[in-house]
Amino acid sequence: MSTRAGIVVTGTEVLTGRVADRNGPWLAEQLRTHGVDVAHTVVVGDRRADLLAALEFLAGTGVDLVLTSGGLGPTADDLTAEVVAQFQGRPMVLDEALEAHITAIVERLLAGRGVHWDPDATAAGTRKQALVPDGATVLAPVGTAPGLVVPVAAGRSGPPMLVLPGPPRELQAMWPAAVADPVVVAALARRRELRQATLRLWGTPEAEIAATLRSLDALITPLEITTCLRDGELEIVTRYGPDAQPAYDEFAATIAAAYPATLFSADGRQIDEVVAETLLARGLTIATAESCTAGLLAGRLADRPGSSAYLLGGLVTYANEAKTELAGVPADLIARVGAVSAEVAAAMADGARARLRTDVGVGITGIAGPGGGSADKPVGLVHLCASTASASLARRVVIPGSRADVRRRTTEIALHLIRELLG
Amino acid sequence: MSTRAGIVVTGTEVLTGRVADRNGPWLAEQLRTHGVDVAHTVVVGDRRADLLAALEFLAGTGVDLVLTSGGLGPTADDLTAEVVAQFQGRPMVLDEALEAHITAIVERLLAGRGVHWDPDATAAGTRKQALVPDGATVLAPVGTAPGLVVPVAAGRSGPPMLVLPGPPRELQAMWPAAVADPVVVAALARRRELRQATLRLWGTPEAEIAATLRSLDALITPLEITTCLRDGELEIVTRYGPDAQPAYDEFAATIAAAYPATLFSADGRQIDEVVAETLLARGLTIATAESCTAGLLAGRLADRPGSSAYLLGGLVTYANEAKTELAGVPADLIARVGAVSAEVAAAMADGARARLRTDVGVGITGIAGPGGGSADKPVGLVHLCASTASASLARRVVIPGSRADVRRRTTEIALHLIRELLG
Repeated sequence: MSTRAGIVVTGTEVLTGRVADRNGPWLAEQLRTHGVDVAHTVVVGDRRADLLAALEFLAGTGVDLVLTSGGLGPTADDLTAEVVAQFQGRPMVLDEALEAHITAIVERLLAGRGVHWDPDATAAGTRKQALVPDGATVLAPVGTAPGLVVPVAAGRSGPPMLVLPGPPRELQAMWPAAVADPVVVAALARRRELRQATLRLWGTPEAEIAATLRSLDALITPLEITTCLRDGELEIVTRYGPDAQPAYDEFAATIAAAYPATLFSADGRQIDEVVAETLLARGLTIATAESCTAGLLAGRLADRPGSSAYLLGGLVTYANEAKTELAGVPADLIARVGAVSAEVAAAMADGARARLRTDVGVGITGIAGPGGGSADKPVGLVHLCASTASASLARRVVIPGSRADVRRRTTEIALHLIRELLG
Repeated sequence: MSTRAGIVVTGTEVLTGRVADRNGPWLAEQLRTHGVDVAHTVVVGDRRADLLAALEFLAGTGVDLVLTSGGLGPTADDLTAEVVAQFQGRPMVLDEALEAHITAIVERLLAGRGVHWDPDATAAGTRKQALVPDGATVLAPVGTAPGLVVPVAAGRSGPPMLVLPGPPRELQAMWPAAVADPVVVAALARRRELRQATLRLWGTPEAEIAATLRSLDALITPLEITTCLRDGELEIVTRYGPDAQPAYDEFAATIAAAYPATLFSADGRQIDEVVAETLLARGLTIATAESCTAGLLAGRLADRPGSSAYLLGGLVTYANEAKTELAGVPADLIARVGAVSAEVAAAMADGARARLRTDVGVGITGIAGPGGGSADKPVGLVHLCASTASASLARRVVIPGSRADVRRRTTEIALHLIRELLG
């Protein structure tokens, strides 16, 4: 029986999608590396009864620890500390040292920003943030909100609760102190190692993998396998205990043998890392010329620290004149074959390469929609080309979905095109 | 008492953050526009017991409808239909018409992709996808997975369950049929109108808003107000019934009067829309020159359909040579003041404007980190400039957080800089 935890993510803005939750997944992954399994993440709005119900649910599933993120700010809709205190049977008390500490932080913050502020108004907010459940351990604030470790009150039973702030940067910076807290350490004492390994394939249908998995029934029994198809990439993630390592190794070898052409990552690396490491290893530089993606590929190539070693720059050639002016695509070529064409994609790739004097160039031109399509050239049609001085690889795709889908998936395809060209 | 729904998002890949959940927030927002309130979204991995526990929890909160997304694929880890059937007390039966329908879809899909495939292998997956709870209504597949409306079995009580596929495009395309289903219509019959309005401020501390809200105590009692600070933008979202409209109007007017300089959107529009509409309304064109953001600003300016009316193109000038070559920044200027400087940001903005012959130019140069910082120019230091032929606005910021935080927040600041320049 492994150690398990449950996560509550609070915030109406997360529940309604105005803000994407980055804390639930981050906490789940941190817990996994500590050998702790997460069964549920509950996203709940800023309402007392709903938050209480979420705590009750998770505590009732028998987890060893409940973690919360968010709801620790100065406004009245920030309820988490108070509701956790109620659930754990502990009254709220003012921590005066904490109040002084937060006051100093807030004053420094506001002074540094040079904004007008009202000391009396902020004092009330600070006092609210310094109210903590009696008997809880306070984790020092990274922003203005403290974290809390709240054990259940004496005479009652249930898991301890680890209360963390909502801003991802604050939550992540507080994490080392949180997992070193004695109450948290004790709650997770039963943990055992849980390994995770990922295989990634490009272009194999999920149904084929399903059939392969069915044929491996006995072998994969000790493995927990999940498959996920996303933007054309099929991901096979396996979780297993150390004793199942031989079974996993055999499974991974079987998949590698069955799908030699489409398995592009056997060690969990994402396509971005595969491309970056190939460029680095071979000492190659790259430049982009993008129309419908308008910088998304260049932006993604710059995600990694140290990307200036290979990414020299890029051209966003949204208007036809920009294609000619910046990437050197002949205006008469565009007039003859159209901006969305294999010829223009190739000229953009070559133009980016020539302009930025790089080894590799990528050209992308397409119709992201929702308007601008025709019978000949429908919405979702994208031409891509990746080239070096001696070779090039082109692709024509018609991508279903929204404007955002087309642009995101085109970026993904471009990365695979670079990989294939350099492979 | 309003109508309420609960959402279950399945998938270990979502729980662990390999894939960001786009369905929970989308469904919550759709339900809200239908007057249905969502209290909880539970994210759960592909495990039978955990999924059952999530269904039990949501049904137990007394909601009128439970929605699920994901877990309808051909692989064995896709469990949703089966677990929902078990929970609702209905056996699984093979729907032969559905099986034939899915077979035709899969054959067409695989043939179109020109990939090698094994008909026997895919048949088993298709058959699995055609097993449906007895008495459920089948919603026609958009991809290969059908949706399901599953009422509770006769003699038992509980909310009906609406089972939707995981790929956002399929889920969204199936939505109109789902909300037209008679069982769903009946479940949501009690719904009442729930209005939502959003105010956005740039540069007002959350503590100040907290104080203002406290001073408006009586006025805001009938309003459900949540505030959220994100990347420097403070969002105030208010939900209320139609009878509270006068209270909301008074509240919005009070905030507008109290924060005239920082309230930039009183009608829910995001900064991207405000900038796009300003450019459109004034017939202005724009171009970018980006270093640390490397295309993220251009990519974001192209998010909106029809953005080619204002975005002509951009320059990703990651290397110093690219700044000189593409944006015309004098090499000796870079040598003298450094690439990350107010002077270079201004030269980049002017260079982008000159190069693309636009009305507005934006230059961004900074140190995204984690390396590359110094005492003088720390990680997170970014210089931005937005300019027209007759005016310019510059900003120097030091942004805390990770490389991704710095790049994302810089993009946000750049949009506000454009707004302020044109305001």
